[in-house]
Amino acid sequence: MNFIASLNAAWVRNNSLLCVGLDPDPAKFPERLKGRPDAIFEFCKNIADATADLACCFKPQIAYFAAQRAEDQLEALIAHIHATHPGVPVILDAKRGDIGSTAEQYASEIFERYQADAITVNPYMGRDSVDPYLAYPDKGVILLCRTSNPGGSDLQFLDVGGEKLYERVARLVASEWNSSGQCALVVGATFPGEIARVREIVGEMPLLVPGIGAQGGDVEATVHAGCTADGRGLMINSSRAILYAGKGEDYAAAARRVALETRDTINRYR
Amino acid sequence: MNFIASLNAAWVRNNSLLCVGLDPDPAKFPERLKGRPDAIFEFCKNIADATADLACCFKPQIAYFAAQRAEDQLEALIAHIHATHPGVPVILDAKRGDIGSTAEQYASEIFERYQADAITVNPYMGRDSVDPYLAYPDKGVILLCRTSNPGGSDLQFLDVGGEKLYERVARLVASEWNSSGQCALVVGATFPGEIARVREIVGEMPLLVPGIGAQGGDVEATVHAGCTADGRGLMINSSRAILYAGKGEDYAAAARRVALETRDTINRYR
Repeated sequence: MNFIASLNAAWVRNNSLLCVGLDPDPAKFPERLKGRPDAIFEFCKNIADATADLACCFKPQIAYFAAQRAEDQLEALIAHIHATHPGVPVILDAKRGDIGSTAEQYASEIFERYQADAITVNPYMGRDSVDPYLAYPDKGVILLCRTSNPGGSDLQFLDVGGEKLYERVARLVASEWNSSGQCALVVGATFPGEIARVREIVGEMPLLVPGIGAQGGDVEATVHAGCTADGRGLMINSSRAILYAGKGEDYAAAARRVALETRDTINRYR
Repeated sequence: MNFIASLNAAWVRNNSLLCVGLDPDPAKFPERLKGRPDAIFEFCKNIADATADLACCFKPQIAYFAAQRAEDQLEALIAHIHATHPGVPVILDAKRGDIGSTAEQYASEIFERYQADAITVNPYMGRDSVDPYLAYPDKGVILLCRTSNPGGSDLQFLDVGGEKLYERVARLVASEWNSSGQCALVVGATFPGEIARVREIVGEMPLLVPGIGAQGGDVEATVHAGCTADGRGLMINSSRAILYAGKGEDYAAAARRVALETRDTINRYR
């Protein structure tokens, strides 16, 4: 099944718009895991197993694995999720962006080596830097549009002929880059008015929304601004608030509790 | 020595503005290397050893290593270059760009794990996505400005209040982000007029110029447009034309020959 179909099925089956972000920071792991060579895999696997029926997707952030020389654990984690929770797609958050020949290498890394179902991509280098990912017809390609960080406005909020740069990116992706229906966009929860504006531009296209929880975004405003008419259309990401809900051996149970609360809070406003 | 000082010293010592790009593609390796588990390291090491006195810097492209599960070989390669050719700085071409907490992980990956001297960074997410790299005072931070690929114009050429987006990026970096003097910019050789425009905006800031050779950029126009008054200021990258100059066992000698020709062609126009 392709990424978009798989996401649609997970939205319905798990009655959830929650994306569980996997940003493993060994300094925050419980004591028992510290020093174990497979600590990152073990931690993330237990979080995934505890939340898979509450999530519409998982989103490992590759930087956390790469900083720890844990590429093999990332491969094992994605393989585990596919084998154990086959209905929950995996987005590898990598925010790649490079010329075509290099993007082919990244596409091979993300889709063949890691077997991810979707990748996040930076649009700054334009259409041909995105094509190598679109060449994998079953995969999702999630373009940065309006990011949740303070500096997001430095470029994305510039006026380009009567609209903001992020609006132009949304229009370009919706009207040109998404010809095969594989695309989605990243729009931060810290800007609900802009989520609404992007929804207006892109129709039913899925939006990946980081920025609730640790970054302070408002769930009610996000849902009202971003849901499609059928109450779907969003992947609302939470990472740290779920991963580190428990500080001790109860971390997986604590993560499940917060994931459940977050899913239900989101559902209250759909 | 910090990256910018090291680059300045290499410009003078090797009388060279040539950046040797290391984009290892095992399909193009000579027969003898095929199937060797350390083929990527061995190939790149031999290229580096054959060209180190002709280059102002090396630029491994991380995508080529990641697609081949060759992170360990990339670590070994950079360690080899530092040990054997300590005067030639290493730029890790990674084009990263993410929120602050994630950028800290990437900075750790690039500067601590790989011990690179500089990184390429995508500016789309703004200032706070760049700060974690600037926090390493000896390291270089090379922002994408005007890229050499056809789709580069999709966003970078948009008008933002009387100037192009790439000009705004150049101005932002020169006037705000470069307060500690660690920054450089990527400007493609395929657009000499725009190299000249960026040079006008940024003063003496170093420019990394991809796009000669396989991508068709003109060396004479690039040098005339981009050199500073003292005949320096550029890192003109060539990857494929040098790496795959020879198809057989003579690949290192062939790479040296093309690197020498390229350096001398560049110098003719300085």
